[in-house]
Amino acid sequence: MDQLLKDAQRIKSLEIQGATNVAMSAIDFLSGYAKRLKYNEIGKCLEDLYKAREILNNTRPTEPAMRNGLKYIMSQLEKEKHDCSLEDIPDKIEAYKNKYRQLLLNSKKKIAEIGARRIPESDKKFIAMTHCHSSLVIAILIEARQQGKNFKVINTETQPRLQGRKTARKLLKSDIEVIHVVDSAMRWAIKHFQVDLILIGADSITSEGTVLNKIGSRLLALVAHEENIPFYVASPLLKYNPETNLGTLEKIEMRDSNEIWKDPPEGIQIVNPAFETIRRRYIDGLITEAGIFASSHVPNYFAKMYPEMVE
Amino acid sequence: MDQLLKDAQRIKSLEIQGATNVAMSAIDFLSGYAKRLKYNEIGKCLEDLYKAREILNNTRPTEPAMRNGLKYIMSQLEKEKHDCSLEDIPDKIEAYKNKYRQLLLNSKKKIAEIGARRIPESDKKFIAMTHCHSSLVIAILIEARQQGKNFKVINTETQPRLQGRKTARKLLKSDIEVIHVVDSAMRWAIKHFQVDLILIGADSITSEGTVLNKIGSRLLALVAHEENIPFYVASPLLKYNPETNLGTLEKIEMRDSNEIWKDPPEGIQIVNPAFETIRRRYIDGLITEAGIFASSHVPNYFAKMYPEMVE
Amino acid sequence: MDQLLKDAQRIKSLEIQGATNVAMSAIDFLSGYAKRLKYNEIGKCLEDLYKAREILNNTRPTEPAMRNGLKYIMSQLEKEKHDCSLEDIPDKIEAYKNKYRQLLLNSKKKIAEIGARRIPESDKKFIAMTHCHSSLVIAILIEARQQGKNFKVINTETQPRLQGRKTARKLLKSDIEVIHVVDSAMRWAIKHFQVDLILIGADSITSEGTVLNKIGSRLLALVAHEENIPFYVASPLLKYNPETNLGTLEKIEMRDSNEIWKDPPEGIQIVNPAFETIRRRYIDGLITEAGIFASSHVPNYFAKMYPEMVE
Amino acid sequence: MDQLLKDAQRIKSLEIQGATNVAMSAIDFLSGYAKRLKYNEIGKCLEDLYKAREILNNTRPTEPAMRNGLKYIMSQLEKEKHDCSLEDIPDKIEAYKNKYRQLLLNSKKKIAEIGARRIPESDKKFIAMTHCHSSLVIAILIEARQQGKNFKVINTETQPRLQGRKTARKLLKSDIEVIHVVDSAMRWAIKHFQVDLILIGADSITSEGTVLNKIGSRLLALVAHEENIPFYVASPLLKYNPETNLGTLEKIEMRDSNEIWKDPPEGIQIVNPAFETIRRRYIDGLITEAGIFASSHVPNYFAKMYPEMVE
Amino acid sequence: MDQLLKDAQRIKSLEIQGATNVAMSAIDFLSGYAKRLKYNEIGKCLEDLYKAREILNNTRPTEPAMRNGLKYIMSQLEKEKHDCSLEDIPDKIEAYKNKYRQLLLNSKKKIAEIGARRIPESDKKFIAMTHCHSSLVIAILIEARQQGKNFKVINTETQPRLQGRKTARKLLKSDIEVIHVVDSAMRWAIKHFQVDLILIGADSITSEGTVLNKIGSRLLALVAHEENIPFYVASPLLKYNPETNLGTLEKIEMRDSNEIWKDPPEGIQIVNPAFETIRRRYIDGLITEAGIFASSHVPNYFAKMYPEMVE
Amino acid sequence: MDQLLKDAQRIKSLEIQGATNVAMSAIDFLSGYAKRLKYNEIGKCLEDLYKAREILNNTRPTEPAMRNGLKYIMSQLEKEKHDCSLEDIPDKIEAYKNKYRQLLLNSKKKIAEIGARRIPESDKKFIAMTHCHSSLVIAILIEARQQGKNFKVINTETQPRLQGRKTARKLLKSDIEVIHVVDSAMRWAIKHFQVDLILIGADSITSEGTVLNKIGSRLLALVAHEENIPFYVASPLLKYNPETNLGTLEKIEMRDSNEIWKDPPEGIQIVNPAFETIRRRYIDGLITEAGIFASSHVPNYFAKMYPEMVE
Repeated sequence: MDQLLKDAQRIKSLEIQGATNVAMSAIDFLSGYAKRLKYNEIGKCLEDLYKAREILNNTRPTEPAMRNGLKYIMSQLEKEKHDCSLEDIPDKIEAYKNKYRQLLLNSKKKIAEIGARRIPESDKKFIAMTHCHSSLVIAILIEARQQGKNFKVINTETQPRLQGRKTARKLLKSDIEVIHVVDSAMRWAIKHFQVDLILIGADSITSEGTVLNKIGSRLLALVAHEENIPFYVASPLLKYNPETNLGTLEKIEMRDSNEIWKDPPEGIQIVNPAFETIRRRYIDGLITEAGIFASSHVPNYFAKMYPEMVE
Repeated sequence: MDQLLKDAQRIKSLEIQGATNVAMSAIDFLSGYAKRLKYNEIGKCLEDLYKAREILNNTRPTEPAMRNGLKYIMSQLEKEKHDCSLEDIPDKIEAYKNKYRQLLLNSKKKIAEIGARRIPESDKKFIAMTHCHSSLVIAILIEARQQGKNFKVINTETQPRLQGRKTARKLLKSDIEVIHVVDSAMRWAIKHFQVDLILIGADSITSEGTVLNKIGSRLLALVAHEENIPFYVASPLLKYNPETNLGTLEKIEMRDSNEIWKDPPEGIQIVNPAFETIRRRYIDGLITEAGIFASSHVPNYFAKMYPEMVE
Repeated sequence: MDQLLKDAQRIKSLEIQGATNVAMSAIDFLSGYAKRLKYNEIGKCLEDLYKAREILNNTRPTEPAMRNGLKYIMSQLEKEKHDCSLEDIPDKIEAYKNKYRQLLLNSKKKIAEIGARRIPESDKKFIAMTHCHSSLVIAILIEARQQGKNFKVINTETQPRLQGRKTARKLLKSDIEVIHVVDSAMRWAIKHFQVDLILIGADSITSEGTVLNKIGSRLLALVAHEENIPFYVASPLLKYNPETNLGTLEKIEMRDSNEIWKDPPEGIQIVNPAFETIRRRYIDGLITEAGIFASSHVPNYFAKMYPEMVE
Repeated sequence: MDQLLKDAQRIKSLEIQGATNVAMSAIDFLSGYAKRLKYNEIGKCLEDLYKAREILNNTRPTEPAMRNGLKYIMSQLEKEKHDCSLEDIPDKIEAYKNKYRQLLLNSKKKIAEIGARRIPESDKKFIAMTHCHSSLVIAILIEARQQGKNFKVINTETQPRLQGRKTARKLLKSDIEVIHVVDSAMRWAIKHFQVDLILIGADSITSEGTVLNKIGSRLLALVAHEENIPFYVASPLLKYNPETNLGTLEKIEMRDSNEIWKDPPEGIQIVNPAFETIRRRYIDGLITEAGIFASSHVPNYFAKMYPEMVE
Repeated sequence: MDQLLKDAQRIKSLEIQGATNVAMSAIDFLSGYAKRLKYNEIGKCLEDLYKAREILNNTRPTEPAMRNGLKYIMSQLEKEKHDCSLEDIPDKIEAYKNKYRQLLLNSKKKIAEIGARRIPESDKKFIAMTHCHSSLVIAILIEARQQGKNFKVINTETQPRLQGRKTARKLLKSDIEVIHVVDSAMRWAIKHFQVDLILIGADSITSEGTVLNKIGSRLLALVAHEENIPFYVASPLLKYNPETNLGTLEKIEMRDSNEIWKDPPEGIQIVNPAFETIRRRYIDGLITEAGIFASSHVPNYFAKMYPEMVE
Repeated sequence: MDQLLKDAQRIKSLEIQGATNVAMSAIDFLSGYAKRLKYNEIGKCLEDLYKAREILNNTRPTEPAMRNGLKYIMSQLEKEKHDCSLEDIPDKIEAYKNKYRQLLLNSKKKIAEIGARRIPESDKKFIAMTHCHSSLVIAILIEARQQGKNFKVINTETQPRLQGRKTARKLLKSDIEVIHVVDSAMRWAIKHFQVDLILIGADSITSEGTVLNKIGSRLLALVAHEENIPFYVASPLLKYNPETNLGTLEKIEMRDSNEIWKDPPEGIQIVNPAFETIRRRYIDGLITEAGIFASSHVPNYFAKMYPEMVE
């Protein structure tokens, strides 16, 4: 258990980042834990694995892809528990991990394909906009560019960690024109450049169709709403957090104040929320591996595509 | 004229900053120019001063306090031109400069007094919010604190020049509690801390009641509107730009991209607008030396208080 | 039939009140009617029971829990009609009534549990608000209080029948702080006390996700919308009215004018609507036994959980 | 001074009610106080009258007609102080009181005349709506009825003091059809009866064009806004509170809780605000003795019509 | 293939019009094509039919009922391909065509029935409004009229093809009162006549719940939204375009400029869009053969009722 | 008087059109009437002229420029009545008519100059939009074009009289690019072409800042509001109708139904409103000879510039 707690700490401390990486690592840690188990009764062993999962689940408040992954592993183990010996478990976990990774990769590919259709072929230059860094949004834009489409991307720098710079670099590398602005210029830029489409990623989605994403996302949604600009969120269904259906509220992670000000004056209170929530009324559509639809439908599509992960 | 062009350059290059400083310097430069004039006919001399004024006016697109000051000097000289000799002119300019400075100081004092009344005496902690750095907003808050009022201030850092830090330091020095956030957290903070009042300054005001202020101000106004939070702008009437009545649009100053990113990747376009405009529908009231009122009334109060500066 | 008409009258006259009570009584009346039937052919007997149901259905325009209950009884009888004798019918009705009651009780328990999660554990006092009297809302609040949560409830008196007083008494008894206001102060109170969450019950839900509830509820929803306050409706899925899917509009019950004014001046017209409708756009989420979701999804969850009650 | 304090108490305790009555009484009390003064120097006498005025001003937080009246008296006395002896003062006060009363009466007559034009002559029945009891609104409606116009009035009962009943009785007496509803039915009634025009009175008006009126008025304004129904406020300019121009906020009077619940359960907190504020964006027009206009223009018309009452 | 291309041209050129007609003709053309095929292997034959379908699909950008019909035919042929000989194919196509026509007819009947329930029986005259010409809307209105309901219809002329006149004539023939206005008077008419319900048809529906309909429909939806008038769209589920789920955007057909101006001045650019899109937030409900619901649910109901037409 | 009635009829029947033409003709008719008068007492003569003015005023409900012109003539005659003989009156009327015409011409020139500043000099093509035919809007656009500015104009055809074609022709003649659409495509065009500025004329302005203009103008304002596009109205202050300050409502002229449908089916009711009203909240600014400002300020600027025409 000591090793698992250390492993969990690596997730907690953000040493491991990115929804897919985190999910894969958590499954590895579960598998490592399973290898170290000494029981000869499978029921007892599963019981311990559930406890280990709990520890991993609690490392980060907003990692539904990890939680859904761990649930997937456990529900598969449950199904096969009568047909397998204890030694098989680590291998089985490994096998399901690969399946789960494949689910995430497939959904990314599908989303890139679907999302790219929303960027038109036209002689007039189309203006897209994004905020922060989402590998799915980048995948959509690169797919569209590879289809020869003609567009620019407005990109916010995304203080305090400047993930917008990472986005800018990746887009430039793929031969996509980038216009870079400070976060507070988002409204001015939307109006000035007459943005046609806003695309962001998601950290988590609730049963009501609320999306949790980087701080500033809700602000951008508000401007999109005022200016009547289409606002889309690209996300695998595996970012759905089924616990929200039972009333659990997404927690907003508060990060270290020195990300914002290294040597602040004494007495100041610096608050550094990592995320904010966007209600469904501001989201024109969710782009998922199951297609494009209103975000309130996420639980239905999740249940249809991933019945083994439903509570 | 050469010296004047050098002087003008100092304003243009932002070597001189702050609405009052800029106005005072411009008048000094006009006075210096007058001293160097060699004419012995007063009409000819005034003609040259008008040209000099034009040069000074053109240094910065958004400095109505400077423009109104120069207009004030010229209209006073016009009035007295039959009663004065050429040598008197620099002294006269100096005297009017002091009068003009006094107008600005008086309005600041009055605005602090009026604005402070909007912060209630109460046992519950009141939450105010500001953006960027406005000496008038700071004066209001300090006045209220000196009256023993009990409140906190939410303060945005205001990228890329971080003027919010300057604001934070001044407020802390006056024993006012400060909560400091990144710009993109403005919406989250308004909701999370249940802000009671938003107060910002102005760089310029138009005949329609539109306010020009730091980039991010319009974004903040939009959130205030959505959340139904009172949104006030503190400004001397001398920030009114009478040319806007004749259709001239306020220009948005574009600043150097390396304020945002020192060593950006090749090919990127960085845009760095200094200001944005806030339409009157988002402004609950303007706090001026003539009282608090809807911003569309600025031209009327300006004409009433400063008839000599009306076109 | 005479007895049934008398029984029906007791529902019509509001002698019997509360969604569950009304449903249980209506089923009892159906059972009593079954006992009095003299047929020896089961088909004929069912035919008569359908007629009796019609009479009971027509007693009140807005009692979907009663209608769904009667439909449940009838659909179960239909299923078993080949396997039962006539004498069994009253017992069977009794048995299904108990099952139905259990469905309602379970959903209440589940809703209390889910809803209570929406009240956070925090040191800052949380402010909830309700209107009229809903046993589900009260169950949620009591559940949260029993978990040791720290909150106050703003409560409207709900003229003309003052059901808000009943709510106040129940909450006070459970050691919950109550702030009581007149109905027309609802907007003032939301702003003044900075309400965090609004929770009301439902009398009926339509296929479009419209909720019918006490007069004043739509007004409250409008304020919640303006102030951006989360607005939730707690309701069992059994309040869904499947007829609305076929275009039937919910009827607004008009009650006696002397509830409002005992001795009104001559010639006055007093109108006393009991309910009003709230469109889905004003409802952030519905809290049901199947979880929390956008109200337009009610027909799907109803069909999934209660397939025997679908038309 | 003792007598004056007793007099002031009569205003404070609401023994005297109605904007005009209160103003007239306050002036009488000032006059009585002047009679009792023993000084033989007019400057000293005025000084004392200013103190007396202060006491009267402080009796009620929201009585601008009284305050403007007292200011009118004092400014007239100031003007004539060199031309009058001490004994004349009570007579002079009496004379100015009558002039002031006349101003109020004239404005009422004018407002009735102007407002009545907003009710069209037509064969279709026109639906007006009001809230609480405003003698100006009633004057407008009666004027329109006397012109033979064809309309109904929706009237809210206005808990907890039921001033709506007073309104209903007066309208019925003047042969105007009245539809009476509970306050929380205001939204339902507007939609159901397709209201054409909403008309309310005002207790006070601020320099920003905000109106203070009976609790529930802002709620009604919100509904009018949502339904796009013209919303007008009838008020004499003398309800303008010039202090608001200097930042003073209107205070909301909190009244006794037993107006709402005579024998409440222990531990309950009952709050009973008398008024609420309506921002200018919700008010289509103000109907005053100077005509109909946007409410932000009140200070200008006040200054034009009553220059002697400007601070 | 030559004949098929000619046939396709007849659809493309609008020689054939109306969703049902177009669908039936396209199926006939497919059947005719099948008759002309000479293969003796069924797999090869189907392959050719898929190509033919592609040609027919491409005739018109916005004809989901045709596309769904052709997909229906093909999926049925696929199912039976092992049990049938080549000669049977035309007959089978004919049989499925009739089934498909029946689906459309049944949905129309059902929609008329459901929609008519939304027009109340009342003594007050009810005001409905429509735009352009929709056979479903007309069916609903005629059904309501035949039930003896009492209503008027506001009807826009619908430039440039004046389909509103066709609507007017059909309604008048069925003894329904019609008020006819120019398109730009739609807002005035809604307010002036106090419209109670707006009903339009649909050309296509997307996976997000967006409706595509005649130019001017979105404008009408906007007014309905401002005035809070119920806005409904009547459409068979077969107008759902499943490709939109994969990101494909509906195309707006641009029609000939001389429909607008026969002999325009030189140099003018005339644009004549046939349709526009209405986002789900403006649509209160969709009236379909599966009932009334929020438009975002269309894909679910389509999948449930027509599983053989899902991609 | 008979001749005057005939003259008045020419205005009433729309034989004379255009605000300036109508005003000039009405003054001519007054002058003609004065010539035919036989009195030898100037008081009696003026009395008759007032009656004649009344007849002329009543010809058209919405012609404030005519009414203000007649008022101007009469107020000038009043002023000079003691210094002039009866024979002078026609000459004097002629002289004032010319002055009035000059006022209108000057305001047009000034408005063109001010308005043209709102079209920027830029390399990107700017998109303006108008509705119906306004000679002031056309003057602004031509002025901007003559300054070499680079823009296109979206133009609606304006059924049923197609005044948009007149606008198109005039703009094309001045080398301005025109995109012509049907009225119902206004929303689509604003979004599709990303309109930057909307400019319309006015038929009348009220004391509340409401503008009366061609049917469809309010619809356009609504779209501008939704899309956040600047919406401006160009109008001389002389279109202000001072009677509205006293409560008089602007009347909407209803025109002949056969403008819409020459041979309509029997029983149809065709309504053809000529104008609609635009509330001030939809108007960003009014462009007048006194500058650009919020429309609620019209009465103040009118009183300042034309004191002789104030009631």
